[in-house]
Amino acid sequence: MTMPLDLLEKSLNHRISMLLKDGRILEGKLSGYDAYMNMVLADVDERHGEEVRKLGTLVLRGNNIVSISLSTDL
Amino acid sequence: MTMPLDLLEKSLNHRISMLLKDGRILEGKLSGYDAYMNMVLADVDERHGEEVRKLGTLVLRGNNIVSISLSTDL
Amino acid sequence: MTMPLDLLEKSLNHRISMLLKDGRILEGKLSGYDAYMNMVLADVDERHGEEVRKLGTLVLRGNNIVSISLSTDL
Amino acid sequence: MTMPLDLLEKSLNHRISMLLKDGRILEGKLSGYDAYMNMVLADVDERHGEEVRKLGTLVLRGNNIVSISLSTDL
Amino acid sequence: MTMPLDLLEKSLNHRISMLLKDGRILEGKLSGYDAYMNMVLADVDERHGEEVRKLGTLVLRGNNIVSISLSTDL
Amino acid sequence: MTMPLDLLEKSLNHRISMLLKDGRILEGKLSGYDAYMNMVLADVDERHGEEVRKLGTLVLRGNNIVSISLSTDL
Amino acid sequence: MTMPLDLLEKSLNHRISMLLKDGRILEGKLSGYDAYMNMVLADVDERHGEEVRKLGTLVLRGNNIVSISLSTDL
Repeated sequence: MTMPLDLLEKSLNHRISMLLKDGRILEGKLSGYDAYMNMVLADVDERHGEEVRKLGTLVLRGNNIVSISLSTDL
Repeated sequence: MTMPLDLLEKSLNHRISMLLKDGRILEGKLSGYDAYMNMVLADVDERHGEEVRKLGTLVLRGNNIVSISLSTDL
Repeated sequence: MTMPLDLLEKSLNHRISMLLKDGRILEGKLSGYDAYMNMVLADVDERHGEEVRKLGTLVLRGNNIVSISLSTDL
Repeated sequence: MTMPLDLLEKSLNHRISMLLKDGRILEGKLSGYDAYMNMVLADVDERHGEEVRKLGTLVLRGNNIVSISLSTDL
Repeated sequence: MTMPLDLLEKSLNHRISMLLKDGRILEGKLSGYDAYMNMVLADVDERHGEEVRKLGTLVLRGNNIVSISLSTDL
Repeated sequence: MTMPLDLLEKSLNHRISMLLKDGRILEGKLSGYDAYMNMVLADVDERHGEEVRKLGTLVLRGNNIVSISLSTDL
Repeated sequence: MTMPLDLLEKSLNHRISMLLKDGRILEGKLSGYDAYMNMVLADVDERHGEEVRKLGTLVLRGNNIVSISLSTDL
């Protein structure tokens, strides 16, 4: 069994992509997280349809996250 | 009596399907979960009406889930 | 006094019907539940007006439930 | 001082009426409750404007309740 | 410093008025409360614009309350 | 570092202004608060665009507050 | 690994920018925070599209925050 936080642990320093409750998609390198799934992301791209915006380093609050896509080659 | 988390335990490595609060349906192989019903799903298909998208491996936060359908042949 | 969880206990293996926050009604046999009122339901029918869909076995998260109707002949 | 749960205690086996967050009004005999104000109601009538539906025995989750009207002759 | 619950304590047996999240205003005599700001109110008037309805004695769940107006002559 | 509750402590008996989730702005003298940021405010003015209403003394539940503006001359 | 609260610690006395759930963007100097991500911000600018408003010193409740952008040169 792979616990959700274990998979985040394995994704450290890899790029992940996150779907937020407000419909935005954020892609960035996972630099850290805590037990509430608050995240630190570096080199973040925000995608909203075709639009992409560069957002640098973000702290993202876990309760805004729907799902987290990991690259499958961990 | 079958506790909800026991049934998830029995569903490990089987495909399950999940209805989310935002109306999407995700199908994937259950690789893990925690006490908050955060889930790790592999080989995920997202269905929205007729549309299907391949999403790979996901961590899904439990508080976005309405219900989880299990295959009945466990 | 009948505590809410006691009544669920007495309803085990009986068909119950549940109203969800999203307006759907689910009917099924109660196979289990936990202290958060997460439920395991078997042979589930989903009703939305006249429409009925067969859903098999479900885990339902308690925080999506408004009310639970029990058969009166327990 | 009358604590909220004390007043529920005194209302046991009396008919009460409840306003839910979704605007419905439920009337029924209070058979039990817990510390989260989850309720067991018997012989429930649901009112939505002029319409009345018979719902039998219900478990109602406390977080859907706005207010509880008690008969004043306790 | 006046703690919020201290002010409720001093308001016991006085009429207060409450703004709810659904926009209604309730006025009544405060008969009791608990640490979650669940309230017992007696002789309640519900105001919605010009309309007034008599509601008798109510238990009001604290998480539906925005603010509580106290008479200033405590 | 200035902790949020420390700043409230320093604002006691000063006028502050609060933005609520429902868009209203309340201004009043801070008479007290608790760890949940429930507040006691005196001499409250409610602003909604140009309109101002006098509300006297209020208990405001913390979970309805977005942000609290403090006078800068503490 | 960089924990979310560690990154806030390193951002103390630097300007950060915050996206709120209601769509507003606040920029200000981070003067303090607590474990719930309640924040103290000084010299705050509120941006809503092209509009900028000066808001002085704010306490911001953490549960209204979606994400926090940090300057990348910490």
